[in-house]
Amino acid sequence: MEIAKPYLMFLGDVHDQLAAKTAQGVVDWRREWCIGQLRLPGCKADCGLKDTTIAEAVAAGAKTMVVGVVNAGGVLPDHWISVIVQALESGLDVATGLHKRLRSVPEIAAAAEKYGRKLHDVRFSDQTFATGKGTKRPGLRLLTVGTDCSVGKKYTTLALEKEMRARGIDADFRATGQTGVLISGRGVAIDAVVADFISGAAEWISPAAAENHWDLIEGQGSLFHPSFAGVSLGLLHGSQPDAFVVCHEPTRKTMRGVQHPLPTIGQVIERNIIEGQLTNPNIRCVGIAVNTQALGDAEAKAYLGELEREYSLPATDPIRYGVGSLVDNVLKQFPR
Amino acid sequence: MEIAKPYLMFLGDVHDQLAAKTAQGVVDWRREWCIGQLRLPGCKADCGLKDTTIAEAVAAGAKTMVVGVVNAGGVLPDHWISVIVQALESGLDVATGLHKRLRSVPEIAAAAEKYGRKLHDVRFSDQTFATGKGTKRPGLRLLTVGTDCSVGKKYTTLALEKEMRARGIDADFRATGQTGVLISGRGVAIDAVVADFISGAAEWISPAAAENHWDLIEGQGSLFHPSFAGVSLGLLHGSQPDAFVVCHEPTRKTMRGVQHPLPTIGQVIERNIIEGQLTNPNIRCVGIAVNTQALGDAEAKAYLGELEREYSLPATDPIRYGVGSLVDNVLKQFPR
Repeated sequence: MEIAKPYLMFLGDVHDQLAAKTAQGVVDWRREWCIGQLRLPGCKADCGLKDTTIAEAVAAGAKTMVVGVVNAGGVLPDHWISVIVQALESGLDVATGLHKRLRSVPEIAAAAEKYGRKLHDVRFSDQTFATGKGTKRPGLRLLTVGTDCSVGKKYTTLALEKEMRARGIDADFRATGQTGVLISGRGVAIDAVVADFISGAAEWISPAAAENHWDLIEGQGSLFHPSFAGVSLGLLHGSQPDAFVVCHEPTRKTMRGVQHPLPTIGQVIERNIIEGQLTNPNIRCVGIAVNTQALGDAEAKAYLGELEREYSLPATDPIRYGVGSLVDNVLKQFPR
Repeated sequence: MEIAKPYLMFLGDVHDQLAAKTAQGVVDWRREWCIGQLRLPGCKADCGLKDTTIAEAVAAGAKTMVVGVVNAGGVLPDHWISVIVQALESGLDVATGLHKRLRSVPEIAAAAEKYGRKLHDVRFSDQTFATGKGTKRPGLRLLTVGTDCSVGKKYTTLALEKEMRARGIDADFRATGQTGVLISGRGVAIDAVVADFISGAAEWISPAAAENHWDLIEGQGSLFHPSFAGVSLGLLHGSQPDAFVVCHEPTRKTMRGVQHPLPTIGQVIERNIIEGQLTNPNIRCVGIAVNTQALGDAEAKAYLGELEREYSLPATDPIRYGVGSLVDNVLKQFPR
């Protein structure tokens, strides 16, 4: 799945900024791909782009309209459908992370066919993968893993890409979730793949590369999450990471959506090493990324300091304090 | 997915008995559900059932025609399609484990619609599952796990069901693969489920049950297989087994389809306990099932004896020596 760039960001008429979270993620990390935003009357979201019509976006070179918003219930309202059809008529592909498939809407499917445009439903995977082989591929790989779901794995991975590129390192973010796919323009929502092909899809996401190239792979779930650990394990095996970063949210009491307590960071490090050795015997942890949003500055720094002493690893909040210390350790552990 | 019984077994005109492996599995374990076999001219397979026409099968009460054969390439030849259409016209549902979906063949889809019959493509899963919750359910559960794929997990599980039922224990085989689904008339090919729902599907397969009831769950893959470990882990978490049996094939040098060496039985026991504790802290290994086909009788017995001493667990070849020793240990470990 390769999504043509640049993008026109469609924000619909959603009622708050949170509903445009996906669009905002794309703008935050790929501002240069975003030609403008298309808002319908009553829209309360704003991603800080120039308000642009479909015709203006096409004239400016846009290739894909990204529906980066969700509305209540995940349905696609009729007045959005007509805008999507208009975008297809005007020569744009359309990409969404909605729960409803674009091609399941007859008018949209017909327009895409008629005008020869592509529809990207990034929450689904229609792609065929080989089963994973577990054979070591050239290139270096880093995977973000978690004590839980939704603890900052995507953000940390993107921050690592930005920092490594700023230092002249050849590095690519590799997407495994829907927002990530829109941000990278390529990838697979790994949790939507048929179970037999999880590790095979992860191998496809991060193919053989140059010896000093870093693939920075967005993690999913947690080996300790009773709903999703299978996805996390297949992703770990297929990614065969040389290095991993543990992501954590310190105020959470139970794992997302279930009653299970969170594992400790130490347990997550140990388990990812035990399991990851199957496809990369040299796997090692290179740092800890914590979402300290709920803590004051002094408290956050004290907590990160404690973690550094306990695990002898750099620990940071990527949003507050950047990921420089993590990249320093990657370069120390894997000298070029 | 519930498949109506009894069955008419369709053997087509396949060229050898191996091509009818799925049908033979159903006959071996559910002889009482099989009204007869339907063979086309030139068929070289024989499952030992009475040759029966569709009309005779319907008259005898058959509810579903099971296409329990594969032909070269997994395609569905035209002269099979016309027989399937005839079965639907005659009032039978049709179930297959083929790679091609029955409903993707227009004549078959149309006939099923016209006559209101069900099509069961057991290799695919169109069912919607909840994500796994990991909450302990009442009832007892045993899962077969493996050092590799294709080491006798299905056979061992079915043999355990037969032995436990013979001893008056309330026990049900729970299918997680295509042949198993045809044998049990219910279940899901767990490797065909969307990755996010592996453990949720496993929870559906083995629902809450009476306190002394045993669900005997067919395992898949291996935690040590780089292609399929994610499936095995999700199945382990969703099954939350109280007990597991390790299945093994002692002459295999590398894991099926890949270059990885096999883990030891001890590693498999240890890893399944480590991982299984997430949803059942009391998980324990109750025995070892070995496919000793490649060994002579004395050699097989010596090998099983060695395993028993090494692991302090009963070890048997279910086909050669039965599973009595495994059931003895289950009853000892879990007294009623």
